[in-house]
Amino acid sequence: MTPSFGDILAARVAERQSQVVLGIDPDPGALWPRAGVPAGSHAAGSHAAGSHAAAGSHAAAESRVADDAGGSASGGPVAKAPGGSARGAVAAAVAAHCRALIDAAGPACVAVKPQLACFERLGAPGWEALEATLAHARRQGLLTIADGKRGDIDVSAAAYGQALFERLAVDLATVNPLLGRDAVEPFLEAARARDPRAGVLLLVRTSNPGAADIQDLELAAGGPVWERLAALADELGAGHVGDSGIADVGAVVGATEPRHLARARELMPHAAFLLPGVGAQGGRVQDLAPAFAPGRAGGLVSASRSIAGAHLVAGGDPADCARAEAERLRGLAWELS
Amino acid sequence: MTPSFGDILAARVAERQSQVVLGIDPDPGALWPRAGVPAGSHAAGSHAAGSHAAAGSHAAAESRVADDAGGSASGGPVAKAPGGSARGAVAAAVAAHCRALIDAAGPACVAVKPQLACFERLGAPGWEALEATLAHARRQGLLTIADGKRGDIDVSAAAYGQALFERLAVDLATVNPLLGRDAVEPFLEAARARDPRAGVLLLVRTSNPGAADIQDLELAAGGPVWERLAALADELGAGHVGDSGIADVGAVVGATEPRHLARARELMPHAAFLLPGVGAQGGRVQDLAPAFAPGRAGGLVSASRSIAGAHLVAGGDPADCARAEAERLRGLAWELS
Repeated sequence: MTPSFGDILAARVAERQSQVVLGIDPDPGALWPRAGVPAGSHAAGSHAAGSHAAAGSHAAAESRVADDAGGSASGGPVAKAPGGSARGAVAAAVAAHCRALIDAAGPACVAVKPQLACFERLGAPGWEALEATLAHARRQGLLTIADGKRGDIDVSAAAYGQALFERLAVDLATVNPLLGRDAVEPFLEAARARDPRAGVLLLVRTSNPGAADIQDLELAAGGPVWERLAALADELGAGHVGDSGIADVGAVVGATEPRHLARARELMPHAAFLLPGVGAQGGRVQDLAPAFAPGRAGGLVSASRSIAGAHLVAGGDPADCARAEAERLRGLAWELS
Repeated sequence: MTPSFGDILAARVAERQSQVVLGIDPDPGALWPRAGVPAGSHAAGSHAAGSHAAAGSHAAAESRVADDAGGSASGGPVAKAPGGSARGAVAAAVAAHCRALIDAAGPACVAVKPQLACFERLGAPGWEALEATLAHARRQGLLTIADGKRGDIDVSAAAYGQALFERLAVDLATVNPLLGRDAVEPFLEAARARDPRAGVLLLVRTSNPGAADIQDLELAAGGPVWERLAALADELGAGHVGDSGIADVGAVVGATEPRHLARARELMPHAAFLLPGVGAQGGRVQDLAPAFAPGRAGGLVSASRSIAGAHLVAGGDPADCARAEAERLRGLAWELS
């Protein structure tokens, strides 16, 4: 039997000594000051060569964008998007920002998690920027998580499976289970067909206040709706638990409601939990202990704004602040697990 | 107060005398035989000019793809996708298929509904094909519905709103409400901010067998989960019901379970129902009467495979068969409503 993605995840967590997932939610209106300079304005020309040694610096980040514009990136050059349009320039600036963010915070992380919506709003050039961002993350030894919360039935779910696990070739994808088991299975089939294997993360209890509207509704048979989603995640991962004790079906469990974590762990003893909501949404790493019961890879601490926007709180260089915040989170989670 | 999207929808249904929504789920492995010939192989060269008069014919469809390759389409030329790659050629073939399908079946329809997954799996060129398909549909007087079943929280939902209602500029988008009211509202804000106004379609009771797993769970407070989703759709549309009696928040209610329709109509007196599952999934137009209670625009009959694949059942020319099947559905629904 081929190994479960759970073992791949556990090995990567051990290797990188990190459970931090770098959320990448680029806002074209709030890119890092110098990383966001569009290729084609001055970045493409003024840092043409020689700055690669200064890895992690803004100059290097810009230079590498310029390299991409020359066609070196997989999937096609961002800056040569159709018509050399304003859309292409914005997408190139977004890609540069994402690359600088990965260079700064990536070494303290085990995975990146781009929010697909932030790229889709830029159209086709945004999709190119997404692919370039994923490729860069892979080159840095990071796992990749597509946060698109997709969910659909039969042939449509299979098409999403192709988009996520073949086209984008991610290691994990968030999936919305409202449409039931037969709508999740095609995603899982696509994940399991990939080489190397991939996995899925079912939305079980999300981190927003409105999660209570549907996910917390009490069922006539007992327990809230989200516990049924948890049971579904556990069932789908059964038979695909690795030697590490981690299955290839994980769960999104908001870190903003720590009282849910112990119960979620009871219901899903082998699921890796993606734990959003730390930092900007008010969740605290200290409350996450139950997540790590099956092992260090049992809890993946996801942070986006608290890392990319660390300089807005701390003051100083965005890359330095992001690196420091990611390292701080890494240390907290690692010590706890 | 600006008019509700419900009135725009009702006016378009009346004008086109149709409630049929043309689902567009292109499979690169099953394109219409001649429409699917990639531009750049022979289509781009051999039908360079003069065949536009033969509207609806395969030759014309191919010729128009060739025109697109020359840069006439909005959003950038499909066939000049990055690197002139195989991906670009596949996406161009998909765009040609979609265009031929719209030309054949569109006149009997009120809207098109591309399934986003089918385009996303082709990467950035697929996104260009999607935009070209939407632009072509708009030129034919059709409303556009993005079927992406998106759903996410605060800033991510707002980013999806931008992707759908600004970038793709669709008239309606399907939205997954599992994350609750605060996750749906940003979509609705984006739809209402558009000029002309747009709307959303909440997933309430989907057409797949697995819908029973979560949506049909009985609540302690009475009624199944899906009735709570219906109540949410009704609440969100309150205050945005047009003179037509139709709100700007509609609902996806599978046509495969007609027993749900009357109850759904009780709970959502003003929602337009998108009714998937007719045809390939076993639903029958005859069972849809309760959908039309608030008026003819109360029920939108969605069909994908039964139209695009009509020739596989009936035999004959794909375009002729699609046109006939769309017209048949149109007549059935119009007579019933």
